[in-house]
This record gives sequence, structure tokens and C-alpha cells, in this order.
Amino acid sequence: MVFKLYGLPMSTNTTRAMICLHEKEVDFELVPVNVFAAEHKQPPFLSKNPFGFIPVLEDGDLTLFESRAITAYVAEKFKETEPDLIRHKDAKEAALVKVWTEVESHYYEPAVSPIIYEYFVAPFQGKEPDKSVIDTNVEKLKTVLDVYEAKLSSTKYLAGDFYSLADLSHVSETHYLMQTPCASMINELPHVKAWWEDISSRPAFNKVVGGMSFGQNH
Amino acid sequence: MVFKLYGLPMSTNTTRAMICLHEKEVDFELVPVNVFAAEHKQPPFLSKNPFGFIPVLEDGDLTLFESRAITAYVAEKFKETEPDLIRHKDAKEAALVKVWTEVESHYYEPAVSPIIYEYFVAPFQGKEPDKSVIDTNVEKLKTVLDVYEAKLSSTKYLAGDFYSLADLSHVSETHYLMQTPCASMINELPHVKAWWEDISSRPAFNKVVGGMSFGQNH
Repeated sequence: MVFKLYGLPMSTNTTRAMICLHEKEVDFELVPVNVFAAEHKQPPFLSKNPFGFIPVLEDGDLTLFESRAITAYVAEKFKETEPDLIRHKDAKEAALVKVWTEVESHYYEPAVSPIIYEYFVAPFQGKEPDKSVIDTNVEKLKTVLDVYEAKLSSTKYLAGDFYSLADLSHVSETHYLMQTPCASMINELPHVKAWWEDISSRPAFNKVVGGMSFGQNH
Repeated sequence: MVFKLYGLPMSTNTTRAMICLHEKEVDFELVPVNVFAAEHKQPPFLSKNPFGFIPVLEDGDLTLFESRAITAYVAEKFKETEPDLIRHKDAKEAALVKVWTEVESHYYEPAVSPIIYEYFVAPFQGKEPDKSVIDTNVEKLKTVLDVYEAKLSSTKYLAGDFYSLADLSHVSETHYLMQTPCASMINELPHVKAWWEDISSRPAFNKVVGGMSFGQNH
């Protein structure tokens, strides 16, 4: 049974799921969703995800949405395959993976996502980036990155000295961030920079990075 | 070993963790954090949670923050104790629990939280509720509740015909929502209303509800 992933390679949420599938070397078929024609807001797709967002994962008769639920499912299903992204043999490590996955979801993504939107999506839609939105979120991101720098000075990865779902969850959005002037925020923090260089050099990410473009590379 | 939970009984994030601990009948000590004196933004507390938010859970030498990571840890640690909030014996059910826990986190809470803020926190701070913020989030909440009504017409709880972490995660914030004019949004949807009456009548919630007040009951 081949997994079906509905989404787009340019979408950070889709690639979050793709990276996890590649880490586990799971065969999957990427089914493109034409978001530009609002295909994700129409009945066939809404029957898979009633909120109308990509990605959606189908594993046989199981249909899942929300990228972080999808990665958690894939990481759990293939937990015996290295890398063990959820640290299932150690309850404390597993708990810390959950903590730092929540941190990505509630602190990092809410700051990075508006920055990416202004630098990539707005121009893609023919609009000027809104400087005030960028500035507000740069401030929020700085606070988050200062915590990361302190944490990564004591452990190699966010949840500990092991690569986990918590790190993986950051890769897609940071890839775009690093193509903006905000890259300097990462590059100026030695432990965060080393962490980013490590997690972005993994083969699983290299398999998706070519498709991650809003047209800026063409 | 008694768990220590740092937080406040009026806080929705603290009570999310408390309800989970009560469901599992876990002994814990609630350690009050004086957020009005910004105790959570000062070094002793920041060493437990560098982001400076309540709650924090200490289980021996393990320190956890982010309420949804805490509930996931407690639900996993006591998974053999009923109710099994993560459905660990069924991978598909467990995956759906993750999906609907993410839904609470990414759709429900972002709409409900600003409404609660305007109706309770703003007056508590001597400010008038901002009608435009309420209106914007009522629209968002309506979209979410319509999805819930459809889902709950086919299954008794969000992830299936079983009470799970996904339902539990909604209780604290909905308790406050039901004390605002937005209660009608729940009451007008028969399946959502029945679901709320069910999940809010559980003994674990009754153990915390008395402490959930911004002073409006006094």
C-alpha cells in the first residue's frame, strides 16, 4: 500500500510531511492540489479535510490532516526504523520531543510564517511586503531564537542530543526564512546556525528542497 | 513522587493540564505562580520554562512546559489507566486523536482565545472589550463549529466514539466561552451542544471548575 499525500512541494506544511516520509523511506505518491484554483476549498477535497487545507495523508482507509499530526503518525508507525523521531524507548526524551514540537507550533511558526508571507507570497500575488508586519514578527522571532541559542548551547538538537520530530518540524519554514534578510538572525547565533546547517543537510530534506519555490529561483 | 504543576486555576492552559491529571487520578501539587507580579518572567521560573508561560509540570527531574505536551505526556505515562486518552491500542484511533488535538490548537483556540480575552481579561484590566476583535473571531469560530457539528453528527466525540485528549483539550476554554454571548453559538448546534454537555460533566472537570474565574462570579 503506497501512501497518498495531497499537497504541493512549495508548501511548508506539505514538505513537513514529505520530509518525515523521506526520513522513514516510506513510498508515497504526491497528489497535487490546485490551490490556485481553490481546489482545496471544494467538496472532493473537503471530504478529506473539512477545514480545506493541505496536506492530507491517506494510508489505506485512514485519512489524516494537519501536518504535525501526519508527521507524528508516520514517526509512530515506523518508530522502529531509524531515525527514531519520537524517542519511543525513553519516556523522558519522548516528552521533550513533544515539548519542542509544541514550541515550533506555538512560538516559531507564528513568527516565521508572516515573515515568509510578506517576502514570498505577497510579491507572488503582486503586492508589496508590509514592513510593519515583518518588523513585528522579527521582534517575536528574536525572542524565540534567543531561547533556541541558549538551549542549543547545551544540547545538539532541540529536545536533546538526538535529531527528532521537533527539529524536523522546523526545516520547511526555515528554508524560506534563510532566503530573506532574516537569515542574518540565524547566522549571527552560532549554535542556531550550526543546528540549521545540520538539519538542513539531511538527505530527506535534500529530496524536497528542489520543489520549494515561489518562483524566486526561476 | 508527587507531580508539581506550576500555574493558576484561572488559566485555561493550567486547567488543561489539571483536568488530564485528574482524569488519571494522579496526585499533584499545584504551585501558584504570581503572574500579576510577572513571576513567570523572572529567572527562577524562566529556568523551568524559558518562554515564561504557565503551566510547567515537574515529574521528578523531568521539567515540561506547553500544556498540550504535558497532557500528552501524562496520557502516555498512564495509558493503561482508563480513560485511555490517546487510544494507544489502535494506531488509527491514536492518529485521529492527534489530528483533532491539532485542530483544537490551530483552529479552535486561536478563535476562542481572543474572545475570552476581550470578555474577561480586558474588563479585569479595566478596559472595554474590543467589539471588532470579537466580531472577527466569532466569524472564525463559526466556521470551526460548523465543521464540529458535522463531525459530531457522525461520531460521539471529535476523534471517534471515545473521549480522548482531543475533547479534553477543549474544556477549559469552552468553559469561559459559555459565559459569554457566544454560548448561543454552541447551544444552537445540537451535536456540539450535546458534546459540550457531555465533556463538561465529567468529574475531572468538576474538580477544577470552581477555580476558573476572573472574578466574574464574586
